[in-house]
Amino acid sequence: MYIPTYEDMLAAHERIKPHIRRTEVRTSAYLNELSGAQLFFKCENFQEPGAFKVRGASNAVFGLDDAQAAKGVATHSSGNHASCLSYAAMRRGIPCNVVMPRTAPQAKKDTVRRYGGVITECDPSTSSREATFAEVQAATGGDFVHPYNDPRVIAGQGTCSKEFMEQTDGLDMVVAPIGGGGMISGTCLTLATLAPECQVIAAEPEQADDAYRSFKAGHIIADDAPKTIADGLLVPLKDLTWHFVSGHVTEIYTASEAEIIDAMKIIWKHLRVVMEPSSAVPMACVLKNPEAFRGKRVGIVITGGNVDLDRLPWLAAS
Amino acid sequence: MYIPTYEDMLAAHERIKPHIRRTEVRTSAYLNELSGAQLFFKCENFQEPGAFKVRGASNAVFGLDDAQAAKGVATHSSGNHASCLSYAAMRRGIPCNVVMPRTAPQAKKDTVRRYGGVITECDPSTSSREATFAEVQAATGGDFVHPYNDPRVIAGQGTCSKEFMEQTDGLDMVVAPIGGGGMISGTCLTLATLAPECQVIAAEPEQADDAYRSFKAGHIIADDAPKTIADGLLVPLKDLTWHFVSGHVTEIYTASEAEIIDAMKIIWKHLRVVMEPSSAVPMACVLKNPEAFRGKRVGIVITGGNVDLDRLPWLAAS
Repeated sequence: MYIPTYEDMLAAHERIKPHIRRTEVRTSAYLNELSGAQLFFKCENFQEPGAFKVRGASNAVFGLDDAQAAKGVATHSSGNHASCLSYAAMRRGIPCNVVMPRTAPQAKKDTVRRYGGVITECDPSTSSREATFAEVQAATGGDFVHPYNDPRVIAGQGTCSKEFMEQTDGLDMVVAPIGGGGMISGTCLTLATLAPECQVIAAEPEQADDAYRSFKAGHIIADDAPKTIADGLLVPLKDLTWHFVSGHVTEIYTASEAEIIDAMKIIWKHLRVVMEPSSAVPMACVLKNPEAFRGKRVGIVITGGNVDLDRLPWLAAS
Repeated sequence: MYIPTYEDMLAAHERIKPHIRRTEVRTSAYLNELSGAQLFFKCENFQEPGAFKVRGASNAVFGLDDAQAAKGVATHSSGNHASCLSYAAMRRGIPCNVVMPRTAPQAKKDTVRRYGGVITECDPSTSSREATFAEVQAATGGDFVHPYNDPRVIAGQGTCSKEFMEQTDGLDMVVAPIGGGGMISGTCLTLATLAPECQVIAAEPEQADDAYRSFKAGHIIADDAPKTIADGLLVPLKDLTWHFVSGHVTEIYTASEAEIIDAMKIIWKHLRVVMEPSSAVPMACVLKNPEAFRGKRVGIVITGGNVDLDRLPWLAAS
């Protein structure tokens, strides 16, 4: 297992700068008042394909040598990693193969295809996904870019908190959602060197709290069929992300579905940005634990903005 | 009638800079491809109170001498001007009285009150509004700040396109919605001097097309009970805004309700910002008249972001 280093993150930033946005950091006097903290929101939903995952994906794609690049990349994902990897591959002009369950939302498939990704459908089971992916990879020779458990991906995600610290003149803590742990691991990687005094806080849905329970137990515990509105956070930690989570994260907080939906609506209304339910988990945790954040300079990563505008969670009951 | 000058706009910018945001300009490769133009979006929805009107309101409020400031300001509005004037007055620590129909949405009243504005309710008729406003003004001595037909307000709104030109290294045209004409007049005021070659295009709902008809007729024509989803654009032109519209606007385009709603959803989805229906009218007009914009550097002002998240227009039928 290769552990990416701070230098890998710096190299990633130079490599991907022409292909990503240095996203805006937004603030709101109202949200500061509401939380009692000084909040800074890093708007990764403003990346062209709508998520921070374009950083790690671009680092993997643009780091390939020409021989491998000719064969392209491959992954399995039905979320932002699939569209971001397709987007990065399109920018380099190389193939991207994606294995996706046939039950994935049409909008997700459309986005991958808009960026030139080639989808191979599988059944919605781990065994079918693994078998189908093995076939695709054997046929294409595409380099496997895991959504998070890949040192190139983690080094890429780490570039976000480097920009964040530059744009804010420093923070007391950074709060980001945790699913597989790619963003949190990149944040740990960068801040451990750049700002070791800055705390890294992970935020997780109660209904998919495997990282929370793993953190408390001291070893990886997988969820049994997690179900949450924060659908970007369903996947489990893996060895590489566990290395960073167990070694550098200060605390993991959890929030209920109702708290996540409330926080999502508050940010839409007052920060006026469109973001996914997964991105609302940090704000939900900040509002739920005011004593932990009061008076602090708190950076919150808004991880993505790809949401079905026809199915907003606060309107689900109507 | 005092016509504000370019120097008034420059003075306004110096005056209000500490009290407003230099809002971000966002771009989207996808929206460029969709429109065939190079689009730049000035996100005035990101102002703290959520609309460009904080510029004009702040210029009026911070331009008062101390004696008048002690008596505060007053206006009649049920929209963004009321909340932005309250916000500006709160920042200076002076009273703001607002006359508002009792039928105005509760959310609008709540926002004004959050910023310390004092609401006096009237019946939803012009006569009741005028009578009630006269009483309030007589009782308080508050300085009347009209939502748009005021040289201080127009000079303030003009600061938006000054920033816009600085942030984009120049534009071929600026497109903004037109209701009473405050933003469009400020845009004309600034660009006539700063970038006379830059066209100023107004965008208006078909169902409230008084500015379009006035522009074609060469004199002000009022609407008869206009009704549109773009509820920030219901008010008529007045003498001061007509001066700018008739003298400097290049063209006025109109869009149907369905086109406005489509454009709104497209911007929410791909630019990932929360904005009002009124702010979608320029994009609707750009998509409807591609030949007028193709290949051009087009600036679009996203005028405001205060929208009822429980009643999104594309979900109205569901």
